[in-house]
Amino acid sequence: MSIANTYSNKAWHLVSRPSREQPAGPHNFRLVESSVAEPAEGQVLIRHLFLSLDPYMRGRMNDGKNYAAPQNLDETMVGGTVGEVVASRHPKFREGDRVVGMGGWQLYALSDGAGLRKLPADDSIPIEAYIGPAGMPGITAWVGTTQIIKPKAKETYVVSAATGAVGTVAGQLAKMAGARVVGIAGGPDKCRYAVDTLGLDACVDHRTADFEQQFAAATPDGIDGLFENVGGDPFKFSLRRINFHSRIALCGLVASGYDGTPTVVEDMRMVLTARCLIQGFIVTDFLPLWPQAIAELSGHLASGRIKWRTSIADGIEAAPEAFFAMLKGGNFGKQLVRLG
Amino acid sequence: MSIANTYSNKAWHLVSRPSREQPAGPHNFRLVESSVAEPAEGQVLIRHLFLSLDPYMRGRMNDGKNYAAPQNLDETMVGGTVGEVVASRHPKFREGDRVVGMGGWQLYALSDGAGLRKLPADDSIPIEAYIGPAGMPGITAWVGTTQIIKPKAKETYVVSAATGAVGTVAGQLAKMAGARVVGIAGGPDKCRYAVDTLGLDACVDHRTADFEQQFAAATPDGIDGLFENVGGDPFKFSLRRINFHSRIALCGLVASGYDGTPTVVEDMRMVLTARCLIQGFIVTDFLPLWPQAIAELSGHLASGRIKWRTSIADGIEAAPEAFFAMLKGGNFGKQLVRLG
Repeated sequence: MSIANTYSNKAWHLVSRPSREQPAGPHNFRLVESSVAEPAEGQVLIRHLFLSLDPYMRGRMNDGKNYAAPQNLDETMVGGTVGEVVASRHPKFREGDRVVGMGGWQLYALSDGAGLRKLPADDSIPIEAYIGPAGMPGITAWVGTTQIIKPKAKETYVVSAATGAVGTVAGQLAKMAGARVVGIAGGPDKCRYAVDTLGLDACVDHRTADFEQQFAAATPDGIDGLFENVGGDPFKFSLRRINFHSRIALCGLVASGYDGTPTVVEDMRMVLTARCLIQGFIVTDFLPLWPQAIAELSGHLASGRIKWRTSIADGIEAAPEAFFAMLKGGNFGKQLVRLG
Repeated sequence: MSIANTYSNKAWHLVSRPSREQPAGPHNFRLVESSVAEPAEGQVLIRHLFLSLDPYMRGRMNDGKNYAAPQNLDETMVGGTVGEVVASRHPKFREGDRVVGMGGWQLYALSDGAGLRKLPADDSIPIEAYIGPAGMPGITAWVGTTQIIKPKAKETYVVSAATGAVGTVAGQLAKMAGARVVGIAGGPDKCRYAVDTLGLDACVDHRTADFEQQFAAATPDGIDGLFENVGGDPFKFSLRRINFHSRIALCGLVASGYDGTPTVVEDMRMVLTARCLIQGFIVTDFLPLWPQAIAELSGHLASGRIKWRTSIADGIEAAPEAFFAMLKGGNFGKQLVRLG
């Protein structure tokens, strides 16, 4: 029986771009069904088990200058995936191999092996960790923390979106380095989890009316390192508290305006006087360090030194709604879509 | 005959601080005359030949958080000086030695030798160069260019206050590195000098009405490195043109508001998307590199590879007026006060 008869694919295509008149939403996507093609010579067919939903995808929806080329219209939306090889005509992959790659928002993907990585056969960490704390989001946290901020013992390290996919790992890595870690998160449940489970020293809820006062009280010695995922007011208030020789890893501005308000710096003199370092970064600029990062993060996960949690949406149909909910902070932990 | 009978000192004291009601000006200083004390054991008496006037002094006039402690009221204003030893009871210095140090806004200074450096006896470069391109301003340019921006061949490097004490050296160092260097300066004379004498590829007059358009035309490939001395609109327009992996050495914000308008970043997304590095810095954070910088800069000056010019005010009495004129861009080249 042919693969085409066995498997039916469903894929989310980006079919329109957000505009000022019509902000981004699920209406920009369309679910397209198709039969699955047989792998050609040199190709491998993967059945996806989990799709990762990440804030960078919002940027890809736009046309114009960004990290990477925009997502093409009428093609499957980009996304990190873990899955199993169901058929292979590629010398490096065999049926049953577990793999991680950029398979996109769909149930099946054909790949020529580029960007596809075979995962260890052991079960020391769950497969979805390879698109979470041992994958792109975790490596992002590792790069920003170990390569840019380099927190030292007793320094104050602040991480926004502290219970998100990146922030969860960033805060725990900074704790391992001996820093005093203060999280920023949305709501009391996330803040409690950040302190009680992730082990942060404090966590401030940015949704409270007196957030700036609470945040100042939680950072009495100022801020030496800032892992910025969010932008907006938390960033503004953080800048007001930076110490001499502080370092800011500028990773994301999810609270800020693709459609809305930009994240501003009110006065660069603060940055000058503090001799502050601000480094915008993207994890793919650090590809040579990925093997080291993955090895360290996998070890921390297997030993339980890094804890994490997931928000799971079930079924490919749920992807767009889950994605936009995540951008508003509706997730609690790494946002995944379960496909398997 | 005693030193006290021979020499009479004149020193500018800071006697009040600027406020919102009364912005900074010469009224904040008072010229105080006194007799010169004999050096005690371990001290050296220096007759100043030149005083350096530098933008950082404006910050020292304020109370509050800054690089360094504020200038104390009713004490001699801080400043870099070159001079000659006229009497010494210090084992390392002899009468006639030429020295550079932080002697302050005065004719004579007593020193215990801390921060005082003996200059070479040769005349390969003029003594005032040691408070100019081979001194603090030149080292500042060297640090920002070679340690932060690290311009590569064919990259576009922008320097504001391009004919100032720091900018003059920064632009020429970037040219030596093979970059395409675009200056920003105030007025056609400075721009002509930047291109014709300093050898920059272009220089744009920030006082022209269509500055942003001219600046865009002069940086058709965007900006890879920015040596920022000024802030304000030139900084804003520069940020709009930064390339991927651009580096900004944030050295000064002289156009910006101690009393007036702050220098803002309109949208940090530009910094994030470009994976831009912004590093606020002060040259004294790089003290271990000073000997290397001074050696390289002195060599470039002696060989004529680095050109420079001075704006000289004559006599200690002229210091405050010359200082505030410089802050408004009234100088053309390194601002000095001739005291000898």
